[in-house]
Amino acid sequence: MSGNVQLVVVGSVALDDIETPFERREGVLGGSVSYACAAASFFTKVGAVGIVGDDFPAGAIETYERLGVDLAGLQRVPGRTFKWSGVYEDDMINRRTLATELNVFEHFSPDLPESYRDAPFLLLGNISPELQLHVLSQVKSPRLVVADTMDLWINVARDPLMEVVAKADMLTLNDVEARMLTGEHNIRKCADAILGMGPGYVVIKKGEHGAILVSGEGIFIIPAYPVDSVEDPTGAGDSFAGGFLGALARGGEVDEKAVRLALLYGSVVASMGVQKFSLESFQNLRLAGIENRLEELKGMMRV
Amino acid sequence: MSGNVQLVVVGSVALDDIETPFERREGVLGGSVSYACAAASFFTKVGAVGIVGDDFPAGAIETYERLGVDLAGLQRVPGRTFKWSGVYEDDMINRRTLATELNVFEHFSPDLPESYRDAPFLLLGNISPELQLHVLSQVKSPRLVVADTMDLWINVARDPLMEVVAKADMLTLNDVEARMLTGEHNIRKCADAILGMGPGYVVIKKGEHGAILVSGEGIFIIPAYPVDSVEDPTGAGDSFAGGFLGALARGGEVDEKAVRLALLYGSVVASMGVQKFSLESFQNLRLAGIENRLEELKGMMRV
Repeated sequence: MSGNVQLVVVGSVALDDIETPFERREGVLGGSVSYACAAASFFTKVGAVGIVGDDFPAGAIETYERLGVDLAGLQRVPGRTFKWSGVYEDDMINRRTLATELNVFEHFSPDLPESYRDAPFLLLGNISPELQLHVLSQVKSPRLVVADTMDLWINVARDPLMEVVAKADMLTLNDVEARMLTGEHNIRKCADAILGMGPGYVVIKKGEHGAILVSGEGIFIIPAYPVDSVEDPTGAGDSFAGGFLGALARGGEVDEKAVRLALLYGSVVASMGVQKFSLESFQNLRLAGIENRLEELKGMMRV
Repeated sequence: MSGNVQLVVVGSVALDDIETPFERREGVLGGSVSYACAAASFFTKVGAVGIVGDDFPAGAIETYERLGVDLAGLQRVPGRTFKWSGVYEDDMINRRTLATELNVFEHFSPDLPESYRDAPFLLLGNISPELQLHVLSQVKSPRLVVADTMDLWINVARDPLMEVVAKADMLTLNDVEARMLTGEHNIRKCADAILGMGPGYVVIKKGEHGAILVSGEGIFIIPAYPVDSVEDPTGAGDSFAGGFLGALARGGEVDEKAVRLALLYGSVVASMGVQKFSLESFQNLRLAGIENRLEELKGMMRV
């Protein structure tokens, strides 16, 4: 994709060590920026805001470039790149974190290139709410800001997180996190409580069971495409968010109907991402393949 | 509903002791027959095949009668009625069985009244495969036989269970059971393996995440209606199956389209059932209430 950056993604860039019951891979490209940008790249011009160390391999840069991801916002500094090491259980769903080495990510200050500040769509990937607020202070008037978060920030940075939530148009989080954030157990009550905090949309993610969108216009049940094999579920939530925002940016409209359709695209792209390790699924993927699976998924929802 | 019995339900009738984090109820009407017949009763004439002891309360019989359930197949014998005692965890999903007292159920021989043997629809609730086969030997030529099963029978009675599966038109079971039965982990592979065992349809249930239907015509993702409160999840799978078969019997057609719609009715009725203890939700429910929630659920699936 060429032209101005339409979607800015801020988050982590990582070199992950991933072990599944079937395979072990070391130093593979990961992080929320990588998955979200790759997923969005099929639909729109996406710019990455993140930080890597001087160990970051040329091959990873080439992966981004082949996908057409704009890298003006990617900082490269001395030191080692952020690394997550984890092991998936037999169910290929539950996982155990072995190590999180922040490395250069520890002193990350997400500064947006001038060319990104007018972008109409912004994804605040899962980084500290303080950094998310710092990003928000740099953008002009985005049409839709999506913020992702996680249990850690709910526990250790609730006040700045609440400020992010108040400023975001959509919050995405998983069901466990939604319960932590709101103190409610029931998912509908969680969603209603979050809408009361500011965003017009909340997406509660349920992993392989899909997600639900709740807005003032009601509920949309977002199905997960039932894949016939999973190699690496890492980054599925980021691919979902990136695919969603990419599809929304492509369409240009931001209303309930457009949001629903774009969320289906996100679900489809995420389902493709988990079928291979790291970003491998995305490397030979074309938009037509996504469209085919979208039609298939729609057929699975047809009464 | 009056007229001939269109749907026969065979299974357990129980007086359950149920404890949730919020409430404890003793001796409430339960068992697969109770939930499935109640759910089906809104759509069609349903007949119950089960066994109760002489402790079975008159109030429970009245509950069935008010719902219009035909009781010609309900045996009453000396002794105590089957009882399940269980405790739900804080999530209102996971549960622990405290006791299973078979009582009169231990010597249950499901004999169908003559008036049931021509019924076009048959639900073989979760009883031993040997008893399910005994029922199958008594029916003439049902249009659709649905068999439900559970982990216990997969472990202790695999051979007769395989015979039931081969004779059934649809097998319903949960995701864990599907994995046990087939040795596959992936849900699509589980479903394909089960279709290879004989049934034309398999429904894999995922509790509060809904279910999926797999047939030769593809996959249908059956969403669960997101309820805003759950009082007692007991029997949800039975209500789902009963509501499905009731709706199918009412429509009269048995094809992919009709099956999909009827499964949505099953999902809706099950979502209503869990909002109160035992069969309480069904006692003041009318078909119009079901239709309203069905329309709401369809709206939640609309792209």
